Amino acid sequence: MKHPQTLLVAPIIAALAFVTGTVRADGPLPSWNDGKAKQSIITFVERVTTQGSPDYVVPAERIATFDNDGTLWCEQPMYVQAFFVFDRIKQMAPQHPEWKDKEPFASVLKGDMKSALAGGEHAVVALMAAAHSGMTTDEFEKNVTDWITTARHPKTGKLFTEMAFQPMLELLNYLRANGFKTFIVSGGGIEFMRPWAERVYGIPPEQVVGTSGGLKFEMRDGVPVILKTPELVLNDDKEGKPVGIQRHIGRRPIAAFGNSDGDLQMLQYTAAGSGPRFCLYIHHTDAEREYAYDRESHVGKLDKGLDEAAAKGWTVVSIKDDWKTIFLAKP
Amino acid sequence: MKHPQTLLVAPIIAALAFVTGTVRADGPLPSWNDGKAKQSIITFVERVTTQGSPDYVVPAERIATFDNDGTLWCEQPMYVQAFFVFDRIKQMAPQHPEWKDKEPFASVLKGDMKSALAGGEHAVVALMAAAHSGMTTDEFEKNVTDWITTARHPKTGKLFTEMAFQPMLELLNYLRANGFKTFIVSGGGIEFMRPWAERVYGIPPEQVVGTSGGLKFEMRDGVPVILKTPELVLNDDKEGKPVGIQRHIGRRPIAAFGNSDGDLQMLQYTAAGSGPRFCLYIHHTDAEREYAYDRESHVGKLDKGLDEAAAKGWTVVSIKDDWKTIFLAKP
Repeated sequence: MKHPQTLLVAPIIAALAFVTGTVRADGPLPSWNDGKAKQSIITFVERVTTQGSPDYVVPAERIATFDNDGTLWCEQPMYVQAFFVFDRIKQMAPQHPEWKDKEPFASVLKGDMKSALAGGEHAVVALMAAAHSGMTTDEFEKNVTDWITTARHPKTGKLFTEMAFQPMLELLNYLRANGFKTFIVSGGGIEFMRPWAERVYGIPPEQVVGTSGGLKFEMRDGVPVILKTPELVLNDDKEGKPVGIQRHIGRRPIAAFGNSDGDLQMLQYTAAGSGPRFCLYIHHTDAEREYAYDRESHVGKLDKGLDEAAAKGWTVVSIKDDWKTIFLAKP
Repeated sequence: MKHPQTLLVAPIIAALAFVTGTVRADGPLPSWNDGKAKQSIITFVERVTTQGSPDYVVPAERIATFDNDGTLWCEQPMYVQAFFVFDRIKQMAPQHPEWKDKEPFASVLKGDMKSALAGGEHAVVALMAAAHSGMTTDEFEKNVTDWITTARHPKTGKLFTEMAFQPMLELLNYLRANGFKTFIVSGGGIEFMRPWAERVYGIPPEQVVGTSGGLKFEMRDGVPVILKTPELVLNDDKEGKPVGIQRHIGRRPIAAFGNSDGDLQMLQYTAAGSGPRFCLYIHHTDAEREYAYDRESHVGKLDKGLDEAAAKGWTVVSIKDDWKTIFLAKP
């Protein structure tokens, strides 16, 4: 127990959640079907929040980390950030006449994503650098905000933010109502997620951890700005996720949520702490309402993770069976 | 306004602070003498927390950043972390017989700190790397915790943590009681501060930003660990402070507190935001009760900052005149 105040805060926050309707009379997680997955979450939360229980965890240590793509919102047919990059390249093209004859830009401008990505990692790095660096953080934030409020998913026609998963929002709220601090720990760009994560998920910028590029402080005509530069400072995927957690949070999560092999090390690191731990994989099994993919997918491949979840007894959510609704309920 | 819940949380947190005695019947900041400095703090807090005021700031955006050395605790006659490094080198010496003939280690082992540091930056980097890398983050945390609970200041004989500044603790509590989120943004090592910042300052690890070294995830006999490696990932000083703020917090502070030229860019960056802003410098003016130093000091030099504070009308605290007591009041 680090702070006596935290003991007082937890029940008040729980009471608040009740007042604001986060936990409803029909119980937590209303969009989850009753079943093993839902029950495992509730059982864990009750274990760590019951005072006097041997598994009680003080609120300050109730850290929960969530992958974003495929865990909090839809990542198919490709990562949302990839749509952003392609749109930005097209938008920036008039200022870059040389791109017409230069790969991977030329293919992007022709709308041929497959050829654009044929260059592999080198091509991706070039596209990412063009869309994500060479501007101030304020300018980039505006780019993202303008784009995310208008760009739509090619299949559903919804705004991408409307393809956040309603059951996961309920889970975030349920954890917060029980004194947890919720973090995103994503392979996606940290500056790409922050402008909308608070509005959509209730997760403030300081609780968003992601892949990070270089930043440089500069005085421009007496005005301090921060420039985005092309170096990669943290690749917040796979082995990079526990590194991002240590760097930004500095404390091991007691619960971690993911959907792909990119999240495996985060779940392993979480599971390896002492005391009660909770690891959950979302398995995309619903081709009709969302997408069905796992071991062979190029985006969000879940192969080793599925085996390890079975071996370790982690919770595996089958979207088809466990979720009543998938996408954000309109307010 | 990002979240309706935050509107509800603020008054409850304020009420809580009252219950737990943070804000006492005799008013906030009891260790501060009445005067311009104290009044400027209270006026700013009232401006940004008064609903309906044009300067009202929603709680989510009430970010306050504090330098650590010389701002929250004593940094003389040298940085506390330097004492830690020298002690660690001595402790590790039996495993490093080669250090007896190798500078800067040989001088440290002879207790000759001046010669040890004669090698300049190269020497400092070598000593820092030896004391701060090549172990897991868990091992390093234990090193720091063991040391900080026993090591004492050479002049006062107090534990270093007992040389935290009582008026600044009251300020941290006062801000938190008013819905602010308080962060450390220090040139000191992030992993060096986290093990005790929560106990001493009430600042959890995820709100500590500091100079950061490399981290590497590794499986050791099936157990995931994070290794500390010698690269420098963020030099969280001067121009590095706004970078650290952007990387870790992702939102510009509305209030910033420092004591040296190393904090100047953080204060400039804070001041340059729109809406109400508060910047404060602590001026060490009390040779009798603490130390008196500014423009010519090797540790915590305050020169350009003092000029800029005067030019911009930032608050300058004179320890001699503004603080009734300096060090932590024993509970």
